[in-house]
Amino acid sequence: MSKSSTVTSREQPVADVTSLSGALKVHGETLTIQTDHRIQVLDLTERVMSMVRRLRIREGIVHLFSMHTTCTVFINEFQTALLADIKRFLEHVVARDAEWMHNDPEYSDCDRMNADSHLRAMLLGHNLTLQVSGGEVVLGQWQRILMAELDGPRARSLRIQIFGIS
Amino acid sequence: MSKSSTVTSREQPVADVTSLSGALKVHGETLTIQTDHRIQVLDLTERVMSMVRRLRIREGIVHLFSMHTTCTVFINEFQTALLADIKRFLEHVVARDAEWMHNDPEYSDCDRMNADSHLRAMLLGHNLTLQVSGGEVVLGQWQRILMAELDGPRARSLRIQIFGIS
Amino acid sequence: MSKSSTVTSREQPVADVTSLSGALKVHGETLTIQTDHRIQVLDLTERVMSMVRRLRIREGIVHLFSMHTTCTVFINEFQTALLADIKRFLEHVVARDAEWMHNDPEYSDCDRMNADSHLRAMLLGHNLTLQVSGGEVVLGQWQRILMAELDGPRARSLRIQIFGIS
Repeated sequence: MSKSSTVTSREQPVADVTSLSGALKVHGETLTIQTDHRIQVLDLTERVMSMVRRLRIREGIVHLFSMHTTCTVFINEFQTALLADIKRFLEHVVARDAEWMHNDPEYSDCDRMNADSHLRAMLLGHNLTLQVSGGEVVLGQWQRILMAELDGPRARSLRIQIFGIS
Repeated sequence: MSKSSTVTSREQPVADVTSLSGALKVHGETLTIQTDHRIQVLDLTERVMSMVRRLRIREGIVHLFSMHTTCTVFINEFQTALLADIKRFLEHVVARDAEWMHNDPEYSDCDRMNADSHLRAMLLGHNLTLQVSGGEVVLGQWQRILMAELDGPRARSLRIQIFGIS
Repeated sequence: MSKSSTVTSREQPVADVTSLSGALKVHGETLTIQTDHRIQVLDLTERVMSMVRRLRIREGIVHLFSMHTTCTVFINEFQTALLADIKRFLEHVVARDAEWMHNDPEYSDCDRMNADSHLRAMLLGHNLTLQVSGGEVVLGQWQRILMAELDGPRARSLRIQIFGIS
């Protein structure tokens, strides 16, 4: 197990000031991502960065959206130790075995017993909007684009939209 | 009380890949929403989906913004049992009766005694960005666009901006 | 110490309905912000509002992004008492001195011992998307654009992108 965090490097640093006018280009794609555990954090950074480079949008926005209530996208550092801390924190802040109504057949027809997954997802959020500048995603040195599976394992759909001027 | 969650259905499924160029169209509207309880989760999905269909933006973004510090927008499942769990979780994670300075007349001129509402709102967030593709909002089967009133009852203003190519 | 919250005022109120078509303009800038404490909430509202006015985008989006994993952007009220409550809540919901693996040299080569900062940042989020309408940022009366330093003091980079039709 590595003790280090993954470093993010753009080909060029982000310019201090950028300005561009032109026609809008919108491109959308659905990614399918297979998860292996009930709670799991995956690093999507390279996939998103390579898609943005391929589409040749110079200045704009990239929007990520998890198409599931119990799967989320967010920014943080990617390091094995910190991922274990994230899992432990989520399990602590929302107890899986509390008497949630969503898990009670008297009140709910959901058979996944996943109230904890819904509540944890509410804290992390389902959408993430990042800037594109100089043809690359704007990210700091330690920032990684992460997906948190909160009720896996499953195949998950993530929609990516890139939006801007080429 | 229904045990089931509301299902979201688009007229057409989201296409795997979409690409479009053209002039940008930006449309904004303010919705007023009356709430009935101190804490209440409302389902805005049909209102937002019908506004997007009416505006005939094919590919783009829809942005929702609550114009209040103690009212939030987020994605989750809409089911009576889960809504009760969300309320219970929020009341647990931020205690209403802790000795918050915002509720103390010695330090604060706010007479609503709503520190809990501010802190809960900070966890859920005030803005939500969703994709529009094929003329409809991109949402998974169980995903609903929700507004959480955290210091009602009140009339709340929500601003919606639709942004894209028609 | 003032007991009052800062009020936000636009030159003109937000119009109920706005609609505009045209070429897209994208402008990006990096702001550097020096913080003075380990946990500190700063009010960026006036800087963001004046940048938007200067760029003369009439309808569009302004996107704020913290380029650091332990520094966040969010919306709330700006009042000294509430800021103390926010700090107290963050210190309570994520304990700094729990046995986090990220702080253990056996598992982590990070020497900042800042697992708490990473977990608190995950709750607040690194990106914020706001509407621009009538040439000004759309904000409610008590809403302020806040940055939370969670592992300072440091110099922080915040990237702002303004996106729309002039």
